[in-house]
Amino acid sequence: MVELVGSLNLDTIRSGHGRIRTYIHRTPVLTNSWLNDASGASLFFKCENFQKVGAFKARGATNAVFALDDETARRGVATHSSGNHGAAVARAAKLRDVPAYIVMPSNSAKVKIRAVQGYGAQVVFCEPTEQSREIECAEVIKKTGATLIHSFENEHVIAGQGTAAVELLEDIPNLDVIMCPVGGGGLLSGTAIAAKSMRPQIKVIAVEPENADDTAQSFRAGRRLVTEKKFTIADGLRTNIGEPNFAIIQQYVDDIVTVSEEGIVSAMRTIWETMKIVVEPSAAVPYAAIQESKIDVRDKGVGIILTGGNIDLDALPWSCSRDR
Amino acid sequence: MVELVGSLNLDTIRSGHGRIRTYIHRTPVLTNSWLNDASGASLFFKCENFQKVGAFKARGATNAVFALDDETARRGVATHSSGNHGAAVARAAKLRDVPAYIVMPSNSAKVKIRAVQGYGAQVVFCEPTEQSREIECAEVIKKTGATLIHSFENEHVIAGQGTAAVELLEDIPNLDVIMCPVGGGGLLSGTAIAAKSMRPQIKVIAVEPENADDTAQSFRAGRRLVTEKKFTIADGLRTNIGEPNFAIIQQYVDDIVTVSEEGIVSAMRTIWETMKIVVEPSAAVPYAAIQESKIDVRDKGVGIILTGGNIDLDALPWSCSRDR
Repeated sequence: MVELVGSLNLDTIRSGHGRIRTYIHRTPVLTNSWLNDASGASLFFKCENFQKVGAFKARGATNAVFALDDETARRGVATHSSGNHGAAVARAAKLRDVPAYIVMPSNSAKVKIRAVQGYGAQVVFCEPTEQSREIECAEVIKKTGATLIHSFENEHVIAGQGTAAVELLEDIPNLDVIMCPVGGGGLLSGTAIAAKSMRPQIKVIAVEPENADDTAQSFRAGRRLVTEKKFTIADGLRTNIGEPNFAIIQQYVDDIVTVSEEGIVSAMRTIWETMKIVVEPSAAVPYAAIQESKIDVRDKGVGIILTGGNIDLDALPWSCSRDR
Repeated sequence: MVELVGSLNLDTIRSGHGRIRTYIHRTPVLTNSWLNDASGASLFFKCENFQKVGAFKARGATNAVFALDDETARRGVATHSSGNHGAAVARAAKLRDVPAYIVMPSNSAKVKIRAVQGYGAQVVFCEPTEQSREIECAEVIKKTGATLIHSFENEHVIAGQGTAAVELLEDIPNLDVIMCPVGGGGLLSGTAIAAKSMRPQIKVIAVEPENADDTAQSFRAGRRLVTEKKFTIADGLRTNIGEPNFAIIQQYVDDIVTVSEEGIVSAMRTIWETMKIVVEPSAAVPYAAIQESKIDVRDKGVGIILTGGNIDLDALPWSCSRDR
């Protein structure tokens, strides 16, 4: 794992960018004068909700699947994922014309299950626990000879996720702060390496739901803690921080703050209402930290990675039906 | 009115564009591979939901308010509007630092009322009928000396709305078809003049809700009919077609098709789900015509003006609450 961390740097991220460039979108960076006024900052939103499969996960999964040698790739790829990473691996496998086996919790959002199946992958359902996912996935791999594409403990996945920050800093070079949410830490570790390498004076701030704050606790303790999780609506962030990811975070990240569930929902609504874009709860977590004044961004240039836009429109977290 | 029609051409639209350029967004044109596959066409969505005030109406209103001479402008501007045009006039008046009086139906969406008030305009509520709106507005004008900025029967408004099509054809010059919804006809008449002038071979197709199909009926009859309206969720399109607008439409528009209420809701959901953007029901009307196979777009390049994104997130037209 130490080796994995050591081999990751701006060069490997840039070479991943070259590998995936034709398969992903260079997503736009949006600004909004209302949100700038409300925050007192200049906010630059990197819209990975417009990314292929509707989330940044397309970057890392595509990089990992296309980094495999032909013989290994031919046996297929497998992963366990609550949704976006599964869809991303399924799509990358389809692009490379190899089989994909995606282990998904039986309570996954319908829109996410449909997305994975739409790419022609084989979905294997499991109980909605970390343990059940890993056991099912190991069995699939044993049976098929497929290669595990872990959603964050994988150097090519981390490098691929880092390409969003590369594009953001290419477009807006003079950012003071870059923010993203943290779950397993794939995006955060890639973002931190890319951002600190391209612009050493930038502050890298991660944001985590209070109800799943293992990374914030670990960051303060100086060692990786596995904590009990409460429910969070930010379903992409329920995972514990990965081991190599935490090592990178300790080295490159400046601070980790946490936000409430109400804050996440409120931030998501604010983004929908003012920016007219659909983002999933996890994507709203960094803006929630600004809205809840968990960090001071006044007069700063702040890049925010909006991680994805896959949300079940039949299950929104507020009372929203016209005919009630 | 005939004079009004005669003075409108690509030159007046381009000069309006020059007048408003610093006050509005040049909105992006988005594409979506899923929607292209589903339709068999190449669809180019002009995202006026990202426009200032959240709708194309910022274009026409700004053009009309800034076209007034100083002395006239100083007495203020007034309009009656169910929402987006009211917000657009309020914003333009604030930019020009003159008073604005906006007559709004008492049942307007809360988000639209808040938007108008946020620009410092005075909101005057009226009964939700065409007649009540006009009477209230005339009274306000009599009292204040303000100038009426009609939402569609106004040459500068029409010219301003036409600037969206100018930008779309500048970005994607070889379109075969351009589509927009029709209510009062401000957008459609401006779009038609701009598009046919810039690209004579382009087909201009308007789409209207079946439940408010006066323009489609008038178009077939060859004369302007005022018809009884049923409820349509596309609240921006409930208005009868304007007189000068209809004259332009007869001259420049190729066809007008209609779509069902279910079709509008389904198209809106499809756009939210696949494009990850928030559009209001009126904005989804053209795509509904494609989804319902009301026009043949196979293998064509089709420009679609997504008119706006102002929708009350507490009153969505489907059952959407997580906690039911």
